[in-house]
Amino acid sequence: MKTISIVGTGLIGGSVAVDLRDAGFANQFIGVEQNQDNAAKAVELGIVDQVLPLAEAAALSDIIVLAIPVTAIQKMLPELLSLVPEHAVVIDLGSTKGQLCEAVRHHPKRHQYVAAHPIAGTENSGPTAAHKGLYQGKMNIICEKELSSENALATTLAVFEVLGMKTIFMQPLEHDKHVAYISHLSHVSSFLLGLTVLDVEKDEKNIFTLAGSGFASTVRLAKSSPDMWAPIFEQNAHFLSHALSEYIKHLQRFHECLINKDTEKLYEMMAQANQIRPVLEGITVK
Amino acid sequence: MKTISIVGTGLIGGSVAVDLRDAGFANQFIGVEQNQDNAAKAVELGIVDQVLPLAEAAALSDIIVLAIPVTAIQKMLPELLSLVPEHAVVIDLGSTKGQLCEAVRHHPKRHQYVAAHPIAGTENSGPTAAHKGLYQGKMNIICEKELSSENALATTLAVFEVLGMKTIFMQPLEHDKHVAYISHLSHVSSFLLGLTVLDVEKDEKNIFTLAGSGFASTVRLAKSSPDMWAPIFEQNAHFLSHALSEYIKHLQRFHECLINKDTEKLYEMMAQANQIRPVLEGITVK
Repeated sequence: MKTISIVGTGLIGGSVAVDLRDAGFANQFIGVEQNQDNAAKAVELGIVDQVLPLAEAAALSDIIVLAIPVTAIQKMLPELLSLVPEHAVVIDLGSTKGQLCEAVRHHPKRHQYVAAHPIAGTENSGPTAAHKGLYQGKMNIICEKELSSENALATTLAVFEVLGMKTIFMQPLEHDKHVAYISHLSHVSSFLLGLTVLDVEKDEKNIFTLAGSGFASTVRLAKSSPDMWAPIFEQNAHFLSHALSEYIKHLQRFHECLINKDTEKLYEMMAQANQIRPVLEGITVK
Repeated sequence: MKTISIVGTGLIGGSVAVDLRDAGFANQFIGVEQNQDNAAKAVELGIVDQVLPLAEAAALSDIIVLAIPVTAIQKMLPELLSLVPEHAVVIDLGSTKGQLCEAVRHHPKRHQYVAAHPIAGTENSGPTAAHKGLYQGKMNIICEKELSSENALATTLAVFEVLGMKTIFMQPLEHDKHVAYISHLSHVSSFLLGLTVLDVEKDEKNIFTLAGSGFASTVRLAKSSPDMWAPIFEQNAHFLSHALSEYIKHLQRFHECLINKDTEKLYEMMAQANQIRPVLEGITVK
């Protein structure tokens, strides 16, 4: 049976541990967690059996899953790879892939590493946010699979299959470019919507009693953890900046039509945006 | 027992009819509906008992509920008020209030009209989108209550109580200013997010298979009906334009920090945006 280390026992790492344990995929789960409260909580909730320092955990593990902020992954990954036993597999779950892959591209143990991005999450964080089935039916992306060994790749695919995910393969920059649009931009859009409304209505907190479900849904991601998201935005600044420019341009075009009372054009833009419905409904994860 | 006419038998009007009928608030529901398919559907679904032309429906009704696009309400309201029997109450459910109130401020039968805005809805539209409990636990705003008769106001409050709503009172421009931020801006933000991503990824439709629940939630309102929303944006252009300027400014500030790799400032903005969580959780509709 296997021993798995989960580095970062929050929403993402914790939810992996819970599902793998349920499926009997491993018999020993070790947490690596800087935050003492989270460490205690992860053990208390049965997410991991014990918490150990990274080097000790790595020495004992068959699989090491990295679920910490992406800048921390980038820093940890080269030295961690140097530490791990020859048979071990290191999988990272970060939301950016370019800089992480770059950091270990010429590492002598690169083949023991698999660069993954399971696209799932909620606006909550920490071990208490971890839960069963977070990944079920969702998509996973693996980058530079040709640099991972057959064993590392097979082990990783088995993990994601147990989580109920479909895996596709991409190159790191292609990944970073697309997730800038289909994930990171929605976070920016939501964070700034929240901030704008809070700034303007700061003297009228009661006004939020009027907020309907539409506002709640659009602003939901503004509750996300800055510890996780600031590093993602930093690492994906190039592609995200392009996405954000495009978004601002579209908003400015809409704004002009609004000022010019060009309702026909506003209508047309909204009708085009409506196409998101069939596009999203057409998605079936097999 | 009462006869109620529902002008516009879609999501908003249809859901009112369904709940009022369930509560036994009236025994006769008449639909007024231009769209022949929707008219047939509203009768088939039992939302209304029959569909009649506006003048006939008005002559038979104790209460007339307007749930059509706001520009259509503005056009219809003065002549409708002239038509209705002396005892009848006209309630509009539009998402803007300034121009509607203005249109009938000096109308001899102004006292028979109540300007309301129940803050509820979904991204769906038409009679098939109408459903029980849409309004339950949500907020309703009534404007210029001092211009409605005691009877009209009492009748209207009874309607919204049956729907399970809490009503508060505001002046029309105060209403329009605040809903620009807490409702209309989220629609713009979402419509343009959808349009931006569709525009950029138009040659890679498969990329949407990667969209997670975060994107789906943020872009949900982009599915909303342009027939309903273009008139709202047109009527609330003044306040919405201000809200949209503020939103664009916030996005530009974030964009600058992103380009300058000022991750500390990005972090700070996100941490401030996180305050939306306690603010929204603090909302309890009593």
